[in-house]
Amino acid sequence: MPYQAPADEYAFLFEHVVDFDEVQATDRFGEASSDVAQAILTEAAKLCDEVLAPLQRPGDLHPARLENGVVRTSPGFAEGWCAIAEGGWVGMAADPAHGGMGLPMTLTSAVNEMMSGACLSLQLAPLMSQGQIEALEAHASDAIKDLYLPKLIAGEWTGTMNLTEPQAGSDVGALTTRAVPNGDGTYAISGQKIYISWGDHDVAENICHLVLARLPDAPAGTKGISLFLVPKFIPNEDGSLGPRNGVTAVSLEHKIGLHGSPTAVMQYDSATGWLVGPEQGGMAAMFTMMNNARLGVGGQGIGVAEGAYQHALTYAQERKQGRTAVEGGTGTILDHADVRRMLITMKADIFAARAIALSCAKAIDMAHAGAGPEWEARAAFLTPIAKAFGTDTGIAVAETGVQVHGGMGFIEETGAAQYSRDVRVTAIYEGTNGIQAMDLVARKMMDGGETAARLLDEIETCAEEARSVLPDLAEPVWQASESLRETTEWLVAQTDMSERFAGAVPYLRAFARVLGGYMHLRAALADLGGPREALARFYIKRLMPEHVGLLAHAQAGADDLYGLSPDDLAA
Amino acid sequence: MPYQAPADEYAFLFEHVVDFDEVQATDRFGEASSDVAQAILTEAAKLCDEVLAPLQRPGDLHPARLENGVVRTSPGFAEGWCAIAEGGWVGMAADPAHGGMGLPMTLTSAVNEMMSGACLSLQLAPLMSQGQIEALEAHASDAIKDLYLPKLIAGEWTGTMNLTEPQAGSDVGALTTRAVPNGDGTYAISGQKIYISWGDHDVAENICHLVLARLPDAPAGTKGISLFLVPKFIPNEDGSLGPRNGVTAVSLEHKIGLHGSPTAVMQYDSATGWLVGPEQGGMAAMFTMMNNARLGVGGQGIGVAEGAYQHALTYAQERKQGRTAVEGGTGTILDHADVRRMLITMKADIFAARAIALSCAKAIDMAHAGAGPEWEARAAFLTPIAKAFGTDTGIAVAETGVQVHGGMGFIEETGAAQYSRDVRVTAIYEGTNGIQAMDLVARKMMDGGETAARLLDEIETCAEEARSVLPDLAEPVWQASESLRETTEWLVAQTDMSERFAGAVPYLRAFARVLGGYMHLRAALADLGGPREALARFYIKRLMPEHVGLLAHAQAGADDLYGLSPDDLAA
Repeated sequence: MPYQAPADEYAFLFEHVVDFDEVQATDRFGEASSDVAQAILTEAAKLCDEVLAPLQRPGDLHPARLENGVVRTSPGFAEGWCAIAEGGWVGMAADPAHGGMGLPMTLTSAVNEMMSGACLSLQLAPLMSQGQIEALEAHASDAIKDLYLPKLIAGEWTGTMNLTEPQAGSDVGALTTRAVPNGDGTYAISGQKIYISWGDHDVAENICHLVLARLPDAPAGTKGISLFLVPKFIPNEDGSLGPRNGVTAVSLEHKIGLHGSPTAVMQYDSATGWLVGPEQGGMAAMFTMMNNARLGVGGQGIGVAEGAYQHALTYAQERKQGRTAVEGGTGTILDHADVRRMLITMKADIFAARAIALSCAKAIDMAHAGAGPEWEARAAFLTPIAKAFGTDTGIAVAETGVQVHGGMGFIEETGAAQYSRDVRVTAIYEGTNGIQAMDLVARKMMDGGETAARLLDEIETCAEEARSVLPDLAEPVWQASESLRETTEWLVAQTDMSERFAGAVPYLRAFARVLGGYMHLRAALADLGGPREALARFYIKRLMPEHVGLLAHAQAGADDLYGLSPDDLAA
Repeated sequence: MPYQAPADEYAFLFEHVVDFDEVQATDRFGEASSDVAQAILTEAAKLCDEVLAPLQRPGDLHPARLENGVVRTSPGFAEGWCAIAEGGWVGMAADPAHGGMGLPMTLTSAVNEMMSGACLSLQLAPLMSQGQIEALEAHASDAIKDLYLPKLIAGEWTGTMNLTEPQAGSDVGALTTRAVPNGDGTYAISGQKIYISWGDHDVAENICHLVLARLPDAPAGTKGISLFLVPKFIPNEDGSLGPRNGVTAVSLEHKIGLHGSPTAVMQYDSATGWLVGPEQGGMAAMFTMMNNARLGVGGQGIGVAEGAYQHALTYAQERKQGRTAVEGGTGTILDHADVRRMLITMKADIFAARAIALSCAKAIDMAHAGAGPEWEARAAFLTPIAKAFGTDTGIAVAETGVQVHGGMGFIEETGAAQYSRDVRVTAIYEGTNGIQAMDLVARKMMDGGETAARLLDEIETCAEEARSVLPDLAEPVWQASESLRETTEWLVAQTDMSERFAGAVPYLRAFARVLGGYMHLRAALADLGGPREALARFYIKRLMPEHVGLLAHAQAGADDLYGLSPDDLAA
């Protein structure tokens, strides 16, 4: 794998597209100067290229396996984990009080994305730990923080997230795992959790499970859910490992991809757990972890897209097939118009998805830095878009990468297929992309569309300013934003949520398409006459017009969806 | 797999959408009455449901393997093949003079699609034989026909297609396999061919390879290519098997999917071959086989889409998750608007792709029946659309099927993933979908756009007639056709082929989208107020608008594609 982590691309985005200087101007993140950011990106890129990327194929070929109740990970993964941990990458965003680097999420997102492009299966491990660290920082008692956070941040222990049960997936409120007070401040946790990423492994000495469970007599639904920390080994007060806890990986899933990441069914048999946050307050704490993870999963999509793009471009530059008379042609399939269309589409979409994810991360940073509730609202609004569009882009780009390879693409040895198989799950886990879209049009529009409108105002201000220098790009972006505004207003006016949900997925995608146009326009303004202007032109003229069809779909309402009976569907 | 082959759907399409009565009215296909057609569909459906569908999972779990130079196929595949052969399904369209049924391609396509939905890996075997039968019927000497056709039609022997070499894929003219006259009318064939579907197996006693090769001193490129028939065992004059020929499967590919179909590297070492067609006339003969196969591969996409749709619908009707207050709700995820959106999208797209493929098959029948060159031109025009849109639909529908399954979709045991993995190759083999699109905008527009215009006229006539009864559907179809006409005229006006190729893929898809609207409109007219009208409304209002963005892309020209240098792409 000739993977090269895109550190320079991030440096450009920070400076010209997402205004990282606003983050640097805050008290909280004042130390993250451009020099520091650059040094961090360079160091992370080195880890990705030299240590993690070589683990990508072995992880696929030698999946994690369960042997006598213990998970053995893929060859090299333990060393890869150590390199991530020793570099401090697990605790990049964590509080320095417990050993973290206290860096902004903007930078953390960049590094996470670069790692996922190198080896997605392994990168999922620190991503889970990061989410757990954030949840504990926000909701755990000081005693838990003091005992667990230094270990998690140092990567000596890892974290997992236990929500799903066989009958409780998207409907997490249906879960039945029980927590019974032991009388000594701890709880006995019993039940089964499924799809637990890195639920067991041999890369670190302890595994800390954050588990949603229900206390005796708790009310039904999400209201009755509490959150518990359940370590594999119960730590002593000094952090040394005590007795084995009653939690076991009972099986691993046989998945399409992501073979290096052990996905376990976890059995809890009166396992000792500690409450995190208040009783019945589990969902709030879990949402901290999930929102973090949602942006992180969006970044996984983008990272895999980057890897798949580089892989396809390398192939295209080497493969000779057919002749196309092109000035300055390379004599390879890169000369063919359709191969170029595929590769430039990949590149243009990666740029859009990455810029959107970074904007979301920046909004999180600004909110954390106390810059105001508007930033918090923006972060909440952009999170489902970053997750769904990032992962849809990952899937689409990896698919296109297979297609660029022609017949070779269908052959596993080529490696193109693995990107496609690995990334597929990102549209499903941490809330399917359908759930993201429903979140966007329901919860994230409870402000009457104010946050959306502010984003659209920003787009149109930029487009108006760009009109004199790049009229052929500024005008369509402005128009697209206005179309999006109309549909947004229509959605907000629907009080029956089914009307909104019916068009939620196409609406989310249309929003991303238009945001992507804005991001490309900003890049073009910073590189007039250069390749970024050319890439922006490709995106705005060829890819952004997709929003027209999507908005028609988004505004079509629910009637037609329920006009067909189950019998009609089966006919 | 609860697969039910969609025989009734075909009966509806024959009667109301593709006017099968026109085929029945020809002398050549007069015997294919509606009763006969219905009986055939019913019989084929039974084979699919009872014999072939149960082979789908075993084919994936127990791939074909190469042992001591012989390919052992998946469990049950030999029996499955026998059932296909004994039912006469290999020779459905073949000349009755050699044992075929002489049925129209319309009907053959329907049966092929139903079989591919049941078990794609196995269905590929008869599809290859059918293409070979058609090529031999059109181009082989009487001696070859008399010896080979009865065996191929009866399914005692199977056929393969040998074009690709490591350095000659899309650019078939680059092939180097040599054919040296033996002096006795036969030729010694030497070289290596790759990606040979069913190149070796144990389900029938002999395998007949159609091989493209180059005679000594043949001109470079496609002009110098000849076609040879190379049997695995050289038959005696009475059809009994003689000596083993110098052709061997040297390895099998490890593929993303389609594990039950052995994809072989074939080595020819002075293998004895017989010329098919004139010397240096190989490409014409091969195109007969390829055009047949292209429509067939489009049908594979549709068949898999049908299987994936049924699989996802069954899951949705059983899976309880979350609550949605819907009148007459089922209490399953089918009540959720977004799940409905996914399932109805699948169903609506399958209908469109199937109707387009059938229209192509009908045009082939009309051309074969001597109904005029316009039908031949239409068949040629629709073939790349049927292939690319059918397979893109197969991939998209199978992907959506995975998504409907949520977390279960990523787990192999569920079976949803297999559809997605199996169907992926259909966008690649028999000419990638990019090649199909280039064929459409170049060769298939050498008539100055006349064939396209005739199709658009037909669409608009229908839309005008429908205006009084279904104004909200007729008007957008008419408008879409006009937009498509404008872009078609723009394309035809481009003399630099790069300008056409730059937008070929989005143009092909836009054409399919609009054709799909027309097909849905016809179905709605036959079912006013019924579920087909509701499905048509969903398609025309939500999916067809995609053509707007696609046509903008199609008409954007080549400049932007070549404005980025290889260095820019790698930056």
